[in-house]
Amino acid sequence: MGLKALKGTIVHTPVLGAYEILNDGYIVVENDKVVGTFEALPEEYKNVEVADYTGKMIIPGFVDLHFHAPQFPNRGLGLDKELLPWLETYTFPEETKYADLDYAKNAYSKVIHELWKQGTTRAVLFGTIHREANELLMDMLNKAGLGAMVGKVNMDRNSPKTYCEKTQDSIDETRKFIENTKDKYKLVKPIITPRFVPTCTPELMRGLGELAKEYGVHIQSHLDENRGEIGWVSELHPEHENYSVVYDNYQLFGNSTPTVMAHCIWNGPEEIELMKKRNIWVAHCPHSNTNLSSGIAPVRTYLREGIHVGLASDISGGHDVSIPRTIAAAAQSAKLRWVYLNDGEEVLSTPEWLYLATKGGGEFFGKVGSFEPGYDFDALVIDDSTIADVNERKTEERIERYLYVGDDRNIEARYVAGNLVQEPKF
Amino acid sequence: MGLKALKGTIVHTPVLGAYEILNDGYIVVENDKVVGTFEALPEEYKNVEVADYTGKMIIPGFVDLHFHAPQFPNRGLGLDKELLPWLETYTFPEETKYADLDYAKNAYSKVIHELWKQGTTRAVLFGTIHREANELLMDMLNKAGLGAMVGKVNMDRNSPKTYCEKTQDSIDETRKFIENTKDKYKLVKPIITPRFVPTCTPELMRGLGELAKEYGVHIQSHLDENRGEIGWVSELHPEHENYSVVYDNYQLFGNSTPTVMAHCIWNGPEEIELMKKRNIWVAHCPHSNTNLSSGIAPVRTYLREGIHVGLASDISGGHDVSIPRTIAAAAQSAKLRWVYLNDGEEVLSTPEWLYLATKGGGEFFGKVGSFEPGYDFDALVIDDSTIADVNERKTEERIERYLYVGDDRNIEARYVAGNLVQEPKF
Repeated sequence: MGLKALKGTIVHTPVLGAYEILNDGYIVVENDKVVGTFEALPEEYKNVEVADYTGKMIIPGFVDLHFHAPQFPNRGLGLDKELLPWLETYTFPEETKYADLDYAKNAYSKVIHELWKQGTTRAVLFGTIHREANELLMDMLNKAGLGAMVGKVNMDRNSPKTYCEKTQDSIDETRKFIENTKDKYKLVKPIITPRFVPTCTPELMRGLGELAKEYGVHIQSHLDENRGEIGWVSELHPEHENYSVVYDNYQLFGNSTPTVMAHCIWNGPEEIELMKKRNIWVAHCPHSNTNLSSGIAPVRTYLREGIHVGLASDISGGHDVSIPRTIAAAAQSAKLRWVYLNDGEEVLSTPEWLYLATKGGGEFFGKVGSFEPGYDFDALVIDDSTIADVNERKTEERIERYLYVGDDRNIEARYVAGNLVQEPKF
Repeated sequence: MGLKALKGTIVHTPVLGAYEILNDGYIVVENDKVVGTFEALPEEYKNVEVADYTGKMIIPGFVDLHFHAPQFPNRGLGLDKELLPWLETYTFPEETKYADLDYAKNAYSKVIHELWKQGTTRAVLFGTIHREANELLMDMLNKAGLGAMVGKVNMDRNSPKTYCEKTQDSIDETRKFIENTKDKYKLVKPIITPRFVPTCTPELMRGLGELAKEYGVHIQSHLDENRGEIGWVSELHPEHENYSVVYDNYQLFGNSTPTVMAHCIWNGPEEIELMKKRNIWVAHCPHSNTNLSSGIAPVRTYLREGIHVGLASDISGGHDVSIPRTIAAAAQSAKLRWVYLNDGEEVLSTPEWLYLATKGGGEFFGKVGSFEPGYDFDALVIDDSTIADVNERKTEERIERYLYVGDDRNIEARYVAGNLVQEPKF
């Protein structure tokens, strides 16, 4: 691919808490990586081809840290139900269908199109228990040019008969899944995915922890989403002090590889201490956490403690793939937490939420989510002319308005690891 | 206009709590009113022209009970600020500009286009203090074919020097505004609009209460939005027990004409009792109430008490004109209220929220918001094929998904009082 440059109004958040803005600036890209951002194109790049987006904003691509790909057909359905009837009516029956690869191909083509459309350039995905369907999803993501981690879901207890594995099969299939995919693609990787403690026997969790270490593969799961679930975990594991310690005991808690835990709403101080020690990422899922009446995660507390936080749609507990609308939902939830819990924790500012949506989650993938030199060049070109008003606005105002009011129609171009990514067709 | 019929899957909520669904049914319309809904077209209408929307859903148009039209250019801006700096930085300077009719025409053309685009067929609007700009807005709404009430804002104390009236001028201009507009349009009417107690002297409030009675004009204002504001009102009016009683004392609380109050978050039992007695409408503004850290209105309590509730965008405290997205935000807020307040009040179901968004607010206009016989025929034709999935879905699921996941692109046609309304051009 070589060298190229883009011209436009550059907005990113290298540091939590403030935008870095370069009006009518340049980003120079070499192959998949950012060389640097410049007010004027340096002499040495004078002959480089420039993609001219003058008047438009160039921002990092969005990162989604938690998304159940097979639940995409269910988004916006059953949100009047509580967690368990919702799982039984919608979630498990839908996931079961992915044993059929034709069904999977059809459904996953829509997922990938929506990720592309909404400007989500990297996503950490739950698949289903079916190895082949997960491998197909990875192949399709790779063809589309998007970055992702995909998990073969593991579950061998407390699951419907039609959607449950034998322990050894689950481990064997996961090993095969990892071996088949770990070196196959540059931007699409496998991730170890115990569904959550209640559906995984100790033997299965132990096996998965060993695989993570053996292959150096990242880990994802769910943690402390709602109080009923937490009670269930402590009934299942009275031998452990809390939910985090269960994962930790089976080496599934950042012990050997980076680990992301979705939700983390009700984590107590001991769990927060352990998360910090194990360098855990939190996937904050505000739409899902409100839709399912779970609660509001203490995001400011995590940030103050130096814990990584990224944003996530949690399709289909969350109904909306859009990360900008996830930002608005996160900001709103945090404000309500401030009103009703009055715990002295300040709400986040819009640039702080943008950081979480880009670099905060992006670092789970490596150097992703910022335009600092050496970062993968993942970017969106935002044409906000259709949401502009009759007044001149500062760039800080334009980006805030795009995040709150814009939609996919404002995304003019999407880049992932240096490539301009076209609309996927399957 | 005469007689016509529409064919499609009809979904509405004549009664709070359940959808009424007619798959592949007919609505017969005579002039501006619904004649009835039918499984098959009755013999007597066999020769009536049928608009065939087979496979699509026909739902009532959305009603927005509270929207500051001049703040539309500010939507999505300054949401990190608290209420007072936000008013000073964004709101008041913007509203001041509407003294200039060219500015007003330009800005209001965008407001009206957005209402049309989002399927809001009726809206209760705050204008500015400027009579001419409000009259212009009404004229433009009438030309666009939308239904609305428009208020000339009144404020004569605690306001910026550049955006404040003399008491008698404010009353005189309001009288002139009412006389100029009350019989001018069929679907666009004036509404008495004291901004809120802190910006209106007792003399002004008294004058406005008298105008409401003299002309039989509806009333709108703000009530109990946040705790600081409520404290301010009680400092200004130690002679009255609470905020509602101040309005009531000046005959601005449903005393002679229907009255809608925005927000109503912190109303105590005495206020709720008075609201009930005076037949007050609540404009519930969930996006605004979270964006501005105000709180969560007790919607279930109001409904249980038989108080009217409709939904509202509250542009630009709220950032989003879409009433479906307001439904999702309202449902989410109510669920968080349930988690954190644990006050025993059940959350609303999706058909209940749809009722609020249509008939609940619509009845402030008269027979609006339902397809019952005699109701004004306000309707949207929803083509949900772009958000459909690979599974067959029931109509209840299709409508829920459209509300959560759809957007303006799914609205194929908009009818207001029997007329098919085309995209407004100014």
